[in-house]
Amino acid sequence: MKFYCEKDIIQNAINTVQKATSTKTTYPILEGILIDAKDNTLKFTATDLDLGIETYINANVAEEGSIVVKSSLFGEIIRKLPDDTVMIETNGDNIIIKCQKSEFTLVGNNYEEFPKLPTINENSMYEISQDVLKNMIRQTIFATAQDETRPILTGVLFEVKDGKLSFVALDGYRLAVKSCEINSKNNISAVIPGKTLNEISKILEISDEKVKITFTPNHILFNLGNTKIISRLLDGEFINYRQIIPDEYNLRAKVKTNKLLDSIERASLLAREGKTNLIKFNILDKQIIVTSNSQMGKVNEEVEIELEGQGIKIAFNSKYFIDVLRTIDSEEIYLEFSTSVSPCLVKKADSNDYIYLVLPVRLVDND
Amino acid sequence: MKFYCEKDIIQNAINTVQKATSTKTTYPILEGILIDAKDNTLKFTATDLDLGIETYINANVAEEGSIVVKSSLFGEIIRKLPDDTVMIETNGDNIIIKCQKSEFTLVGNNYEEFPKLPTINENSMYEISQDVLKNMIRQTIFATAQDETRPILTGVLFEVKDGKLSFVALDGYRLAVKSCEINSKNNISAVIPGKTLNEISKILEISDEKVKITFTPNHILFNLGNTKIISRLLDGEFINYRQIIPDEYNLRAKVKTNKLLDSIERASLLAREGKTNLIKFNILDKQIIVTSNSQMGKVNEEVEIELEGQGIKIAFNSKYFIDVLRTIDSEEIYLEFSTSVSPCLVKKADSNDYIYLVLPVRLVDND
Repeated sequence: MKFYCEKDIIQNAINTVQKATSTKTTYPILEGILIDAKDNTLKFTATDLDLGIETYINANVAEEGSIVVKSSLFGEIIRKLPDDTVMIETNGDNIIIKCQKSEFTLVGNNYEEFPKLPTINENSMYEISQDVLKNMIRQTIFATAQDETRPILTGVLFEVKDGKLSFVALDGYRLAVKSCEINSKNNISAVIPGKTLNEISKILEISDEKVKITFTPNHILFNLGNTKIISRLLDGEFINYRQIIPDEYNLRAKVKTNKLLDSIERASLLAREGKTNLIKFNILDKQIIVTSNSQMGKVNEEVEIELEGQGIKIAFNSKYFIDVLRTIDSEEIYLEFSTSVSPCLVKKADSNDYIYLVLPVRLVDND
Repeated sequence: MKFYCEKDIIQNAINTVQKATSTKTTYPILEGILIDAKDNTLKFTATDLDLGIETYINANVAEEGSIVVKSSLFGEIIRKLPDDTVMIETNGDNIIIKCQKSEFTLVGNNYEEFPKLPTINENSMYEISQDVLKNMIRQTIFATAQDETRPILTGVLFEVKDGKLSFVALDGYRLAVKSCEINSKNNISAVIPGKTLNEISKILEISDEKVKITFTPNHILFNLGNTKIISRLLDGEFINYRQIIPDEYNLRAKVKTNKLLDSIERASLLAREGKTNLIKFNILDKQIIVTSNSQMGKVNEEVEIELEGQGIKIAFNSKYFIDVLRTIDSEEIYLEFSTSVSPCLVKKADSNDYIYLVLPVRLVDND
C-alpha cells in the first residue's frame, strides 16, 4: 500500500472514525483504524463491535493495499504533522508516514485480523436532514437511563407511525418525545443505543443535507454520503410510552424558558448543597415561587407566569428541569399539572413537536 | 452591614481573592471570603494562611459591617445572578443577597473568626510592570520541583543584584534564569513559593501598570493598586546557581524555535509510548536529527541548524525541551553543548535575558 494525501483530509477522516474505536478493550485490534487504499480512494474503518464507522476520502493511491494502525497514536502523529502532503506506505506489517522532514515507522496489524462490519443491503427506508436528526438526538438523549439495570432504557426509541417519526427516551423519572414529519409509509419501532446516537450527533453537521437510514432486524445504518455508521439495535420491547402521557391537566402555566431556567439553576445551587437536588414550586396566580434550602441557607425565586386554573405546590429534582430547559428550543413553554403527586408536562408554546414528562418528588409535609 | 453593588464588580472581586481560598482544609473558615464594608468601599479578603489576597471595590454602603461567606457557593450564586445591582446585607450571622426577583439567605461566619493577614509596612522596595512580571513567572515556574523532598526547590528565587532582577528555578534536572533591569540599589535574595507565583500570574494583566513589591524577613507583598497579595517566603538557602552554569561550550547550534519544538513534540509521541520520554539528538553540520523509538515504532526528524564546532550525539528527556521551547519568546535560539554527558544550554539568539540549562540522559550504548 502506498498513497499521498493532504494532512487535514487524513486528520478529518481519523476524527470521524475514531468515535467508534474501543479505548478499553481486551481485543487490541479494536483500538485500530483499518485503512484500505484502492482506486484513488481511501476507506478508514473503526469499530467497537457495537458501533462501526467507515468514511471515504480521495487520495493519490500509488499502490493498493490495506493495514490496521493504532488509532490514538496515528491520530496524534497526523495532527502534529505540518500542513502538507503526507505519504503513507506499508512495509510488511509496518506503516511508514512521511511528511516534509518527518518520518515515522509504526508497528501495524494485518488487515485480515480486523473484524468485518455487518454487510447491509441499503434500501434507504428513511431520509432526514442532518440538522433535524441532530436536534432530535439532542432533545431526547439526556433522558435515557444511565445505569444498565434495564438495558432497553439506555437507548432511544426510533418510531415511525403514520408519517411521523418520533424519538423517545425515558429513565423511570422522566420521558422525552421529539417528533417530526417523515415522508415514508413504512412503520417501524426500533431502539438505538444512546452511545451510538451520542457519537453520530458529533459527526452530524448543522446542514440540510440528507441522512439515509436503513434498518435490518438487528442493525441500523446511517449513510451520510462519504461516511456510514452502523450500529447494532438494542434487544427487547420498549415501554408503551403513550399510555404514560396524560392527555388532561388541571392547570397550565405559560412561562419564559430562560427566566425559569435561570431561577432553577440558582435555586439548585442550594439544592445541590443538600445533596437532594430538591426544589419546590409554589404556583400562584401570576408567578411561580421557586424555593430550595439546605444547611447552607435558603433561596426564593419569583418567575412571572400566565396561569389557567388553580395554583398548586409541587416539588421536583432540579436536574430534571434544568436538562430539558437547556435543550428545548422555544422562547416560551407550557407547564401542565394535575395534582402535586402527578407528573408535570413540559411543552413548547409554539409547537406540538416536543413533550417532556417529569415525575414530582413526594414530600412528607407538603409545605 | 448593607450595601449595593453591580453584579459584575462583585464577581470580579470574588474571582480575584478566590485564588487564595483553601479548598481542602480542616479549618472551614479558610473556605470563606471576608467582606468588610466601610466608607463606600468593600474589602474582600481570602487566605489559606500561606497566601493572602485582598481587593478593594467601590460600593454604595448603607450600613458598615463585616461577615465571612463560603467562597465557592457565594461565587456561584453571584455568577448566576442577572446583570444588575445586587443588594447584600447581614442578619446576625446570616447574609442576604437580593437581585431582581432572587433572594438568597446564606449561613455566614462571624468576621472575628477570620485570620488576620500579616501587617506589612509598605516601603515599595521594587517596582516592575505587570506584563514583565507575568513573563518572568511564566518562563521560570515550570522548572520548579514538583515534589516536596527539597521544599526550597518548589519556589522561585527572587534575586536583585547590581540593578538586575533575576527569577531562578531549578529541580535537579534543569535550571531556568530570567532577568531584567530593575531601578533599585537594594540587593535581595528571597524564595517565593511556586503556588503563590502561579496564582499571582493569573491576576496579573498584560499591561505596563506597575506592581509594587515589599519584602519583610518572612513575607512578600505585591501591591497591584486595588489588590494586594501577601505570601510567606520559603525558609532556607537557595542553591548557588551561578556555579552550575558553564561559561564555555564546544559547539553551538542556532535553530528556529518552532521547528525544533514541532519536531520534538512529534518525536515525543513515540518517546512517551516507551514511558522514558527519551529523545536523541544527532547534531550534524547542517541539521539536528531527532530520533526516538519504542515498541510501537520509531521516528526520525530533521531540523536545519547553523553549527559552530563539531557535531555530537546526545540524549534528553523530551519534556524538558518541550517546556522551555513552549515558553521562550524568541524566534531563534542557541543550543550550546560541551560533551554528551554535560548540560546543554538554551539561550535566545536575540537577547541575553534568559538562560535554560538541561542535563542530558546518559546512554549505555551511545548510539
